[in-house]
Amino acid sequence: MKIPDKVTIIEVGPRDGFQNEPMVIPTDVKIDIIDKLAQTGLQYIQVAIFGHPKVMPQVADAEEVLKGITRREGVTYLPEVPNLRGMERALQVKPEEIRIVMCASEEQNKALLNRSVSDSLNEVGEIARIASSKGMKIGGSIAGAFGSSTEGWVPPEQAEKIAVTYMDMGFHEVSLGDTTGMATPEQVRDLVRRLHRKLKNVRLSLHFHNTRGTGLANVYAGLLEGVTTFESSIGGLGGCPFAPGASGNIATEDLVHMLESMGIDTGIDLLKLLECTKLVQNVIGKELPSQVFKVGPVPWALKTN
Amino acid sequence: MKIPDKVTIIEVGPRDGFQNEPMVIPTDVKIDIIDKLAQTGLQYIQVAIFGHPKVMPQVADAEEVLKGITRREGVTYLPEVPNLRGMERALQVKPEEIRIVMCASEEQNKALLNRSVSDSLNEVGEIARIASSKGMKIGGSIAGAFGSSTEGWVPPEQAEKIAVTYMDMGFHEVSLGDTTGMATPEQVRDLVRRLHRKLKNVRLSLHFHNTRGTGLANVYAGLLEGVTTFESSIGGLGGCPFAPGASGNIATEDLVHMLESMGIDTGIDLLKLLECTKLVQNVIGKELPSQVFKVGPVPWALKTN
Repeated sequence: MKIPDKVTIIEVGPRDGFQNEPMVIPTDVKIDIIDKLAQTGLQYIQVAIFGHPKVMPQVADAEEVLKGITRREGVTYLPEVPNLRGMERALQVKPEEIRIVMCASEEQNKALLNRSVSDSLNEVGEIARIASSKGMKIGGSIAGAFGSSTEGWVPPEQAEKIAVTYMDMGFHEVSLGDTTGMATPEQVRDLVRRLHRKLKNVRLSLHFHNTRGTGLANVYAGLLEGVTTFESSIGGLGGCPFAPGASGNIATEDLVHMLESMGIDTGIDLLKLLECTKLVQNVIGKELPSQVFKVGPVPWALKTN
Repeated sequence: MKIPDKVTIIEVGPRDGFQNEPMVIPTDVKIDIIDKLAQTGLQYIQVAIFGHPKVMPQVADAEEVLKGITRREGVTYLPEVPNLRGMERALQVKPEEIRIVMCASEEQNKALLNRSVSDSLNEVGEIARIASSKGMKIGGSIAGAFGSSTEGWVPPEQAEKIAVTYMDMGFHEVSLGDTTGMATPEQVRDLVRRLHRKLKNVRLSLHFHNTRGTGLANVYAGLLEGVTTFESSIGGLGGCPFAPGASGNIATEDLVHMLESMGIDTGIDLLKLLECTKLVQNVIGKELPSQVFKVGPVPWALKTN
C-alpha cells in the first residue's frame, strides 16, 4: 500500500483551542498567533467560531479577528458557523469558505447543539443554500464520528449518512472528528473506505484526538487509505473535556514531525511552527501536550532549505 | 492486510521503569507490584536487571526480587543480563530465560555499554553459550534500532546484522527497541520486513517509545507486518532520558486498550491492569504518562467475563 507523498494540514488551534480554553485571549494576541501560523507554510487555518457570545465569551470577537488578520496569499482562513444566527454574522465579514459542524449521534448532537440530528441537517441545509448563493465554499465536520461519551460505539452508517447528505448539499469537504478519542486505526480504515466509495468530488479530512494515545496511529491508518487532509492543533491546544491532564487534539508539531520524517511533504517549516508553540504556551500559561515541542525534532523532519 | 487476532505483551516496567526512576523502591514493594502484574493476564514480565549495584543502585536487589516473587503458572519472569558479571549473578537464581541488550550503533553502544558493537557481540556470544549449557532460553534486545541521539538516523542494516548474529547464537527472540523515540511507521515496516525475510525460528518483538507521539502508530505498523509481540511499561513508567515531562516507553494500558478495542486478544484484564497503574503511581509519587489511566477505557476494550 503506497501512502501519499503530500499532505495538507488544517490548523484548528485558533478556533478549537481558543474556544475551549477557559481564559479569554485578547484579540490582538489571537491575530498575532494566526499571522505567525500563516507564515509557517500552513495553507488552512480555522480562525474563529461565530458562537453565541454569552455561551462562548472566549470567541466573542470572531468578527474582529477575521477583520484584523493580515491575509496571506495561498492561506485559507476558515471560520466555523454553528447555526443560522452565526451565518448572519459570517456574512458580514464575507469569508471565502466556512465550516459547519454537527454530531454523528443523537445524544451528542443534543448535548452539543441542543437539537436532533435531523433538525441540525435542516439548519445546515439552509446555511449551505445561503453559502452557495453568496459563492462561498462550505465544508462540514461530523463530530463524534467514531464514538460517543454517553452512547458508546457509533455505527459507521451514522457518519456515512451525514457525509452523503453534506455531499448532496454541495459541500466541498467532509471532516470526520474523533471528538471523544475513541477511534482505533482499524475503525478509521473501515469508515474511510465506506466514505471513499460514496463520496464524489468531496475532500475527506480527518480530525483525531489523542485522548487514549491513538491519535497518530489513526493518522497512519488514514494515510494507508489515501487520505491527504488532516486536522490538528498547535501544541495540542484544546485540551480534553473529560479529564484533567488528558490530551485532546493531536498536536500539529507531532503530526508534521511524523509526516515529514516519513518523507511526506506538508509544506510546513517545523522550526517556525515550534516558535508558534512557544508563543501559544506563553499566552496560555500552562504546559501543552505536544511531545515534539518538549524533546525537539529529528533532523530529517526539517526542511533543508 | 489482515492484522493478527492475538498478541503477546511483554511488560518491562519492573525492569526498565524501576531502573530509570531516581528513587530506590523497597524490594517488598517491587515484589508486590510484580505479583499483581502477574495476576492481570500478562505472560511475560521483565522483573530485574543484573547491573552493577554502584551504577544502578535502584536495582541492586535483583536476586531478592527474583527469589521473592510468587511464581504464577504461565508467566515468564525475565531478568536482563547486561554483561558476563551479570550472568554470573543470574546463574545463582536460575531463571528459565534471560534477556541481553546492546545497541545498533557504535556511539550509542559505547555510551550505554562502554564498548564497541563488535566487543558487545563477543561478550553476548559468551553469555549465550553459558545460557545454552544451562538449558536457559535467551532473547536479545537491539536498542536504538531506528535512530541514535548522537548519530541520527540508523541504517536498517545495522540492526539486521545484529539480529542475524543473535539468531546464529541460538536466541529464541529478537527485540527491536526505538529507545530514542525516532521511529516512524514506515521505518518500522521496512525493518520488520527485512527481519522477517532473514530470521527463522526467532520471535520478533517490538519495543517502542512515545517520545515524539508515534508509539502506538509504530505498533499498528508492526501489526500490519504480522508482528505479535510488543513490549510496554505499566503507566508508561521509565520516563524519557532527553527532556523533563516527555514520554518514554509506551504505556501497557494504552497498548492493551488500542489492541482490545480493535478486537485483538491480549489475554489481559484492563481493569486489573489499571489497578496496578494506580499502585505504581502511588509508589512513584508522580503523574504517569498513560492516557487511558487518566481518562478511562472505552467499554468495548474490556473483557466481558
